[in-house]
Amino acid sequence: MTQFINKREDIVAEAIDGLVAASGGKLARLDGYPHIRVVVRADWNKSKVAIVSGGGAGHEPAHAGFVGKGMLTAAVCGDVFASPSVDAVLSGILAVTGPAGCLLVVKNYTGDRLNFGLAAERARAFGLNVRVVIVDDDIALPDLPQARGLAGTLFVHKIAGALAENGADLAAVSAAAERVIAGTYSIGMSLDTCTIPGVPKEDRIPRGKAELGLGIHGEAGVDQVDYLDARGAMAMMAEKLSHYMPKGKKHVVLLNNLGGASVLESMVLARELSTSAIADRAAFMVGPASMMTSLDMRGFSVSVYAANEEDLAALKSPVASSAWPGIHELAAPKLRELPDGLKPIRPLASLHAPTREFITRCCQILIAAEADLNALDARAGDGDTGSTLATAARALIAALDDLPLADHTQLFRAIGLELSQTMGGSSGVLLAIFFAAAGDATSSGVSLTDALQAGLKRMQEIGGAKPGDRTMIDALEPALAALSKDGVKAAATAARQGAKNTATMAKAKAGRSAYISADHLIGHVDPGAEAVARLFEQLAAG
Amino acid sequence: MTQFINKREDIVAEAIDGLVAASGGKLARLDGYPHIRVVVRADWNKSKVAIVSGGGAGHEPAHAGFVGKGMLTAAVCGDVFASPSVDAVLSGILAVTGPAGCLLVVKNYTGDRLNFGLAAERARAFGLNVRVVIVDDDIALPDLPQARGLAGTLFVHKIAGALAENGADLAAVSAAAERVIAGTYSIGMSLDTCTIPGVPKEDRIPRGKAELGLGIHGEAGVDQVDYLDARGAMAMMAEKLSHYMPKGKKHVVLLNNLGGASVLESMVLARELSTSAIADRAAFMVGPASMMTSLDMRGFSVSVYAANEEDLAALKSPVASSAWPGIHELAAPKLRELPDGLKPIRPLASLHAPTREFITRCCQILIAAEADLNALDARAGDGDTGSTLATAARALIAALDDLPLADHTQLFRAIGLELSQTMGGSSGVLLAIFFAAAGDATSSGVSLTDALQAGLKRMQEIGGAKPGDRTMIDALEPALAALSKDGVKAAATAARQGAKNTATMAKAKAGRSAYISADHLIGHVDPGAEAVARLFEQLAAG
Repeated sequence: MTQFINKREDIVAEAIDGLVAASGGKLARLDGYPHIRVVVRADWNKSKVAIVSGGGAGHEPAHAGFVGKGMLTAAVCGDVFASPSVDAVLSGILAVTGPAGCLLVVKNYTGDRLNFGLAAERARAFGLNVRVVIVDDDIALPDLPQARGLAGTLFVHKIAGALAENGADLAAVSAAAERVIAGTYSIGMSLDTCTIPGVPKEDRIPRGKAELGLGIHGEAGVDQVDYLDARGAMAMMAEKLSHYMPKGKKHVVLLNNLGGASVLESMVLARELSTSAIADRAAFMVGPASMMTSLDMRGFSVSVYAANEEDLAALKSPVASSAWPGIHELAAPKLRELPDGLKPIRPLASLHAPTREFITRCCQILIAAEADLNALDARAGDGDTGSTLATAARALIAALDDLPLADHTQLFRAIGLELSQTMGGSSGVLLAIFFAAAGDATSSGVSLTDALQAGLKRMQEIGGAKPGDRTMIDALEPALAALSKDGVKAAATAARQGAKNTATMAKAKAGRSAYISADHLIGHVDPGAEAVARLFEQLAAG
Repeated sequence: MTQFINKREDIVAEAIDGLVAASGGKLARLDGYPHIRVVVRADWNKSKVAIVSGGGAGHEPAHAGFVGKGMLTAAVCGDVFASPSVDAVLSGILAVTGPAGCLLVVKNYTGDRLNFGLAAERARAFGLNVRVVIVDDDIALPDLPQARGLAGTLFVHKIAGALAENGADLAAVSAAAERVIAGTYSIGMSLDTCTIPGVPKEDRIPRGKAELGLGIHGEAGVDQVDYLDARGAMAMMAEKLSHYMPKGKKHVVLLNNLGGASVLESMVLARELSTSAIADRAAFMVGPASMMTSLDMRGFSVSVYAANEEDLAALKSPVASSAWPGIHELAAPKLRELPDGLKPIRPLASLHAPTREFITRCCQILIAAEADLNALDARAGDGDTGSTLATAARALIAALDDLPLADHTQLFRAIGLELSQTMGGSSGVLLAIFFAAAGDATSSGVSLTDALQAGLKRMQEIGGAKPGDRTMIDALEPALAALSKDGVKAAATAARQGAKNTATMAKAKAGRSAYISADHLIGHVDPGAEAVARLFEQLAAG
């Protein structure tokens, strides 16, 4: 699959430049391109312990995205999935280390151990106080003495970063980092491999399978397991992790998107984690978020750590990086009762013979037009305008006994409600809005014709159609304007003229006929406008 | 492609539960599952203007992820890419609207307009003060009067949310929202379609093409364009947007990941945006981040808005949602000079005949063993241990004239530096660490044998190998222990015994032979251990 990159060899430098440019001046980089790619805090004065991390690229936002007050002081970036050189690491150390010294947080991969390790030796030869901690949180390979470093590294970055920011000395920061490392356990799962720039994508995981126990460099997982759904996937992860989570201890769980799961999926995974077999021990959650990714891998990892009070305070302390999603107490979702008023209170029915007669007449006109309107609609839509209106008209007649016929405000609102429940599609909602808004208007004392105008206005606002868009508005708008001034006969004439005009409109701009070409539209009246014209014409004819 | 979901009809409810569970009590949801899926601020007391938004799911973190103090008061969620019902929207409005009223922020899609619009009417019938604004920031279809609502909606959420939080009344909040909408323009591009749960993935975009001007519901883009690289892609977007960005005005640009671009790619895109043809007008950036996604679509959108001072203050104000990435001034990346010390200062050469003779002897022993060690390594590795050591030995002999032979501390460090530059692979770095640490130790006045022990200790720390792991450590560790106590002959005996023991080790636990099965290892001595044994044996033999 193509990716949003330029030349492969420039990816990391360009990504860093993007990060630094968009940091609002909070970050800087060392002037060592192309080989030395180091991001540093721009506000750093070497007065406290520096926290330096890094490794191969492809794990963004790790590590450069976590540089900022309260977390990393510098990040040293290699090529995609390749350790940075000794010189690059040394540059990072020298650039940020002052008298308080420096902690190197290294993920447990041979290349990183060696390059960071040798750089630390070189830095020590300058008289700098440098300590190295190696993160090995992976539990996928229990027999391997050198477990890999995964997203649990974030716990180390955050806790060490917070302590350093608070002025702890190097011994204290290192001891805390070692304690966190000793208590952090991670495992990952993926449904697909990642796309390494410039390398053909490996289709290793068949449909219906997932890889459990994978690293963050595209290496194969320890097991290919059957994949059914998110719940089953999280259950497998929870089972693995549960052996490392003593009951009764409050753990922080970190839910890391490996880069390619959608945000929607990651929220579902958060739900599954919060209801999994380890939920009783999961007191806090970091994420879900993309923190330690493997490029675009559709996978996730869960890291757990039984944090003490000092750790929790450190995890909660503020940080200048927006990539750190914060830590939150995990709890069953809070529920709020549904508000009153969803079941509309139907107004008491009332009698008013002329109104009843008038509504019945309107409905009969629309029912009589059913076949003609359907035929017109068949040219530009799905041929159901007549039936939609007739069905609603029949339902309204059937409801007459229950309507508050003597109260215009209540009646308009009741008609709106009736239409919203009996008339399908957009037109049902639009007419419901028309009558509801008309009801609102009469409640503030305006005339009936003004109330209808208010309904038209609101319907246009919500529906977005204007005169000329080839809709019922083209008849209704001139009709209502004429009605206010000159009465129903004038309204009928205006409506008919408006409807006629729609036959000259080559392009519908709202509703379904927006997708129909001009050839099919020219010469034919819009069925909605025709319905309005017929209604006014026949009302005017008495 | 399989996804991390359970039953398709449960996705949205489960995702909301995940979000709310992990919100640390900041969010709640209405108790209306399965049809009413509304997320609300848990701390809301209806004392200010409520901001309600929503729409179909599939755009996470929008909209529910932006609920929180300073942004949305409630979000109403439909199914994936489907508008929520009138009842659901009405629930959201009723749940959060107090005397100060409510602003509904609606993206311009027919379903959303109608359902939110009718819900607003119903809420008004309760006497609530509700206003509706329709976001239509898409510029992909310049002829369409009803432009779609895209990620520019985030500007509206943030600015209206901040004003409401600061106590502005509904008229002021609505006016600001209308102003933002009038000035916001967006366009999107994608390299692939999104995967809609339960729907076979449409492979619409051929390799080498991109779709420009797309929506956020999987609909096709307006144009299929040739795709070369990130720079070209951003140039096309910038050209389209430039027509809406008057020169001399300071714009905010929002860089939105449509869900499937990796974080690394999004950083490259940020760089391209910050150096594009519209960079002169782009004063601030929001993102890059996944804000208004289209499930897992590998695409991005750029939204621009010429913010005034009041808008900027609103965009910068704090917000309780971690999904909002903040706004930062956009500037060329700050550079820092490379630190001094990367070019190691070579100590002045000095003479010391016995030391010169000793080093030469050691090197000659290793050079003579080249073929034998290669043969041993061919069984368990890539057959180059002998050559690697011999090459380094030859280089060291060649460098003798330049070494500080008379000063142990300087000499150890210089040998370490020499090896790190002439000896490839892990072993070069490990021996460099060994000698650098030994130099460090002698500088603090310990004996030579103790210094060598210090080197061994550091090499083990960094390399991670322990005795028994089938490495050179298995010979070196007993040899140095014996050397301290009983001299070089004892060291030779111990080294040989240690080397012999490696032939019984069925599993290498460090280095390349960790990947080799026991059958190939048993009965063969590790080549690194053999090198150490030969060195001590021949030194002891005089």
